[in-house]
Amino acid sequence: MITTDILIIGAGPTGLFTIFEAGLLKLKCHLIDALPQPGGQCSEIYPKKPIYDIPAYPEILAGDLTDKLLEQTKQFEPGFTLGERAETIDKLEDGTFIVTTNKGTKHHAKIVAIAGGLGSFEPRKPKIENLANFEDKGVEYIIKEPEFYRNKKVVISGGGDSALDWAIFLSNIASEVTLIHRRNEFRGALDSVEKVQELKNLGKIRLITPAEVKGILGTDKVTGVAVEKKGEDAFIVDADHFIPLFGLSPKLGPIGNWGLEIEKNAIKVNNALDYQTNIPGIYAIGDVNTYPGKLKLILCGFHEATLMCQSAYQRIFPDKKYVMKYTTVGGVDGFDGTRKEAPKAVVKAIN
Amino acid sequence: MITTDILIIGAGPTGLFTIFEAGLLKLKCHLIDALPQPGGQCSEIYPKKPIYDIPAYPEILAGDLTDKLLEQTKQFEPGFTLGERAETIDKLEDGTFIVTTNKGTKHHAKIVAIAGGLGSFEPRKPKIENLANFEDKGVEYIIKEPEFYRNKKVVISGGGDSALDWAIFLSNIASEVTLIHRRNEFRGALDSVEKVQELKNLGKIRLITPAEVKGILGTDKVTGVAVEKKGEDAFIVDADHFIPLFGLSPKLGPIGNWGLEIEKNAIKVNNALDYQTNIPGIYAIGDVNTYPGKLKLILCGFHEATLMCQSAYQRIFPDKKYVMKYTTVGGVDGFDGTRKEAPKAVVKAIN
Repeated sequence: MITTDILIIGAGPTGLFTIFEAGLLKLKCHLIDALPQPGGQCSEIYPKKPIYDIPAYPEILAGDLTDKLLEQTKQFEPGFTLGERAETIDKLEDGTFIVTTNKGTKHHAKIVAIAGGLGSFEPRKPKIENLANFEDKGVEYIIKEPEFYRNKKVVISGGGDSALDWAIFLSNIASEVTLIHRRNEFRGALDSVEKVQELKNLGKIRLITPAEVKGILGTDKVTGVAVEKKGEDAFIVDADHFIPLFGLSPKLGPIGNWGLEIEKNAIKVNNALDYQTNIPGIYAIGDVNTYPGKLKLILCGFHEATLMCQSAYQRIFPDKKYVMKYTTVGGVDGFDGTRKEAPKAVVKAIN
Repeated sequence: MITTDILIIGAGPTGLFTIFEAGLLKLKCHLIDALPQPGGQCSEIYPKKPIYDIPAYPEILAGDLTDKLLEQTKQFEPGFTLGERAETIDKLEDGTFIVTTNKGTKHHAKIVAIAGGLGSFEPRKPKIENLANFEDKGVEYIIKEPEFYRNKKVVISGGGDSALDWAIFLSNIASEVTLIHRRNEFRGALDSVEKVQELKNLGKIRLITPAEVKGILGTDKVTGVAVEKKGEDAFIVDADHFIPLFGLSPKLGPIGNWGLEIEKNAIKVNNALDYQTNIPGIYAIGDVNTYPGKLKLILCGFHEATLMCQSAYQRIFPDKKYVMKYTTVGGVDGFDGTRKEAPKAVVKAIN
């Protein structure tokens, strides 16, 4: 059992900054995220895209924003449960919570802060009637381990960067790579589009466009896919694996069943005070929450996280009066023994 | 008459970031500040001090924060009225406002956003009975133009960096510099303390400690000060100028008379919606406002400014529905014709 003061569901920018504000209050944080690394969308979906509306950053790449937040929070020694999805929550008699992931990891916390962004990102699935029957039997939506495809026949479908990049990468590993896209045009980095063109000319990638996969063949595992090319009869492409790469789509997921008040796929919170949900002790901060005038901006998540930590502190220590100290005046004491502080004026006599 | 969409009172970090968020909504901003440069406290009081709680900055000097915000907002071409204090406000029949400064500069705006921080910074004055009689007649609390003191006899009192730094600086300009402090110990940068020691040894600064100025001599202008040194009889030091440097203290100032609801020296706002005050069209953001759970932090001001701009937009364009676009997706169009945008994926056919 992992124990912590504040359990944060979601390791995006809002979740990460919570570690810092909690740390100033000497509260310890642990974060759960379904993705294998911290940073949320910023790391997973657009690490190389610039953001222009982070205050005091005229421009910052989303991946660099994550790195800065990790650096800012590391002295508070956060714990991480990554690659697991928060599945169930139980409130104990003493008002604390147990959160269990899809892999059974249990976390015990005084406070739960849901910083789940737009939700867990789940793969968009093409509409193919018998697709679900072959999941984990040759149909994969995410490539976890490229070696898994060594000397296999692979069909990838999709027209974006993921489809292009994996077709290129697997062309050196798989015995056959077929890339199927419903248009002749691909949308991706120029380099990738040109590389696929080159590999096609070398015969290392088979390209079928404009075309769609309409069915899966096989009994207990994939043996091929049925392809419909515009203006032609359907035909079969032999395959051990079919990998549709149509992007990720956010889903609130299991959190939607925790008894929280939900509105427009987001969690309602009390924005007039502390961003607490209808369940005392559970807060929702960042893009996952909603309230009158809500803007789904990273800078708003930072503010919400900060006010939420003050409220969490009062909940944990109802009898203590916390007086905020400015970091410029009081410095920052890390849980790892480090201390940051502004240089002090010296006091010295002149004789 | 200066005209603008949003008139911002106060050019500290919150006021500056407002320019950016308003600019995304194509609203133009003009800022008034009593200080001669933008940045508020960050530039005036502690430009060289590190701040540790600006999100995604593990450490940033207050002066650098100001520079980054100026860089981030410059493409929206804000106007500035600096070195003047917003004095009076008039609401016109059409719901717009005229704000006039202490120097008579008039500003006409659709929206007023008070981002006045802790207020205007006013010098702390020592308790000397006849001090006020000599203001601008040899008593100055702020040194605006050092040349004003050339070949004059100057008495400075105070024990901090300002007193030390100005005593050093004026020792090359004034005919006599006397530094008076109620303790033997000074509080300042080590360099400054040592430099004053050195100038004292060279006879370029006369040091009287522990002592206090108890009275001013003169009829229509200062001719000397009465000094009481511990355990000694009072004596007179000839002086053309007496400059008490005891720091600055924030005062809400004339804004306090604008009919706004005030609580604990701050302006009450509706934090459940848009940080509007009790007067429709006047908002208060950043350290100057108060609401349940308020924290006087720069990052909170950023959030408040952002939500406030959305509300201002709705007030200016009641019939338009603004749909927020992410800067990562929509880019940033400056009023100066510049455009920032994320590199787009190319769309290209593979043959």
